[in-house]
Amino acid sequence: MVKALMIGFGSVGQALARMAIRHEERLRARGFALCPVGVFTRTKGSRVCAEGLDLRAMLDDVETGGVFRGDCTALTPLEACRTLDYDVLIELSPLSVAHAGEPALSHIRAALARGRNAVTANKGPVAFAYPELAALARDNGAQLRFESTVMDGAPVFNLVQRCMKGNRITGFAGILNSTTNYILCRMEEGASLQEAVEEAVAAGVAEADPSNDIDGWDAAVKVSVLARVLLGADIGPLQVARGGIREMTQEAIQAAAAEGKRWKLVCRGWRENGAAHAAVALEKLDAAHLFAGLSAYDSALSIESDMMAPNCIVQKGPSPMDTAFGVLEDLLSL
Amino acid sequence: MVKALMIGFGSVGQALARMAIRHEERLRARGFALCPVGVFTRTKGSRVCAEGLDLRAMLDDVETGGVFRGDCTALTPLEACRTLDYDVLIELSPLSVAHAGEPALSHIRAALARGRNAVTANKGPVAFAYPELAALARDNGAQLRFESTVMDGAPVFNLVQRCMKGNRITGFAGILNSTTNYILCRMEEGASLQEAVEEAVAAGVAEADPSNDIDGWDAAVKVSVLARVLLGADIGPLQVARGGIREMTQEAIQAAAAEGKRWKLVCRGWRENGAAHAAVALEKLDAAHLFAGLSAYDSALSIESDMMAPNCIVQKGPSPMDTAFGVLEDLLSL
Repeated sequence: MVKALMIGFGSVGQALARMAIRHEERLRARGFALCPVGVFTRTKGSRVCAEGLDLRAMLDDVETGGVFRGDCTALTPLEACRTLDYDVLIELSPLSVAHAGEPALSHIRAALARGRNAVTANKGPVAFAYPELAALARDNGAQLRFESTVMDGAPVFNLVQRCMKGNRITGFAGILNSTTNYILCRMEEGASLQEAVEEAVAAGVAEADPSNDIDGWDAAVKVSVLARVLLGADIGPLQVARGGIREMTQEAIQAAAAEGKRWKLVCRGWRENGAAHAAVALEKLDAAHLFAGLSAYDSALSIESDMMAPNCIVQKGPSPMDTAFGVLEDLLSL
Repeated sequence: MVKALMIGFGSVGQALARMAIRHEERLRARGFALCPVGVFTRTKGSRVCAEGLDLRAMLDDVETGGVFRGDCTALTPLEACRTLDYDVLIELSPLSVAHAGEPALSHIRAALARGRNAVTANKGPVAFAYPELAALARDNGAQLRFESTVMDGAPVFNLVQRCMKGNRITGFAGILNSTTNYILCRMEEGASLQEAVEEAVAAGVAEADPSNDIDGWDAAVKVSVLARVLLGADIGPLQVARGGIREMTQEAIQAAAAEGKRWKLVCRGWRENGAAHAAVALEKLDAAHLFAGLSAYDSALSIESDMMAPNCIVQKGPSPMDTAFGVLEDLLSL
């Protein structure tokens, strides 16, 4: 029984709950059973129960009425992190660049300081404070895991750590923001930037306010996480050379197409003369480039190292289920 | 100190030796040092030394004269497997379909039966006898590792085992034979099949006798390994529905191009009505298909599971160094 404190119960939290219910037997065979002792949300209410909340009932509540039925707790999420009895904090709240990863950062800090493990799909805390959090985890005998922060549940950090032992990572390149990739693909089909953005929001690919995506913030935060963890670089989101797609026009799209090329928002990290660098920038890629072959719903990351040819992971059309799987993988790894 | 018995010292064995020398310090920091107590080859001679052979001198020998200098052992490789004192057998001999994985299969069987670990880049033994070898390893407290048998050192088996815990693999699809991929790409540029084959041999992509590649045998053996290990299927190389590229013509290549499509030799494994299936077949892929975007030197494998969107690994232009890294990863994992 893993006593979990969940913060956030949106699409990923609900997918995780469904996965834990659906695959209960299989997970139990691996020695894992999820026992949520607290679930905190901004808009659905928050519930606490030391014996374990009924995830099935909470999913039903959300599907039928949008909120949890029954008495809500008066605890704040931070108070819960500091006082409840749990084994692992599952941080699924949304990214906040403006608040430098808060309040998720404080939640994770509070858990690790008490020697509790933390699993996060929220990339903000890792991007803004990885060295501090890693030291805090180490000093308190706790673990911090974050496989879902980049490319949902597709193996990135686990891949490097577990399958590329002995390698030194020298750089990476990727298409890591789904919304801008979708928008650029729709613009190639003739949509204006504005139309493509509206479609992305309507399709649920982008959030209601897609500026985090369009201005490259989401990608920059991911690049920061990768640079910190894979390259050991001290590069926060604000230190990433950041570009977005706000200035992209039909003319530029068509001019590229006429050359047989495609615009993509490419994330890169590399070492040069001993220093690490990180950037998010529009690049006009040859049709033969692997990234140019990605469809509107795909992501990709190429990992360069000193002992191997680049290993590239391509994720075909992920859903919140994939992010939830990454969280589950982290939970199983604890 | 890991006492290793090496069988084979071709491009992969030499790359492994160079890697072990070049990264000696880094590997030692991970608790690993390679001590070759025997190196057996078909054409360069065979050497044995209980205190450890000098890899640097052996590389020099091969580079200067093509053969090992000094006294060669009278032991056969199989006798060495049965009698020498070693911790791990490193099997790097070439694939033999005609002899159902022999003699490598006997080498590995002999090592495992003595409770010695075995690492193989030769896919024959795993394809022809995985259930037997896995049982033999288990019963004798030994390990059999074979990351390099498919896609060189790119993570395939380790990825599934270490990064997709809890998932059930439902199928796979891949471009796994470099020679046929190179030939099809060259034919798209106008070469005849015969010309493309000769170029592939001249470029070192194909072996002197490329029929194992052209007739789909190499791919079928890889598909068998994947089907056995990932799907738990009892499918040997001869049970794979096998196609090749021998009948491919310029006309077919050009007709596909006119439709915006590309011919690729695709490897597949899947489950249907409870039974596992495996095939190697020419497929005419849409330009938008990920595999259609692969260049002449790339490989790819898409892994389908019941908890995630497909994870696809793309390997960009691997060399024998990549296969050697896969072997080294296996050695580090023991």
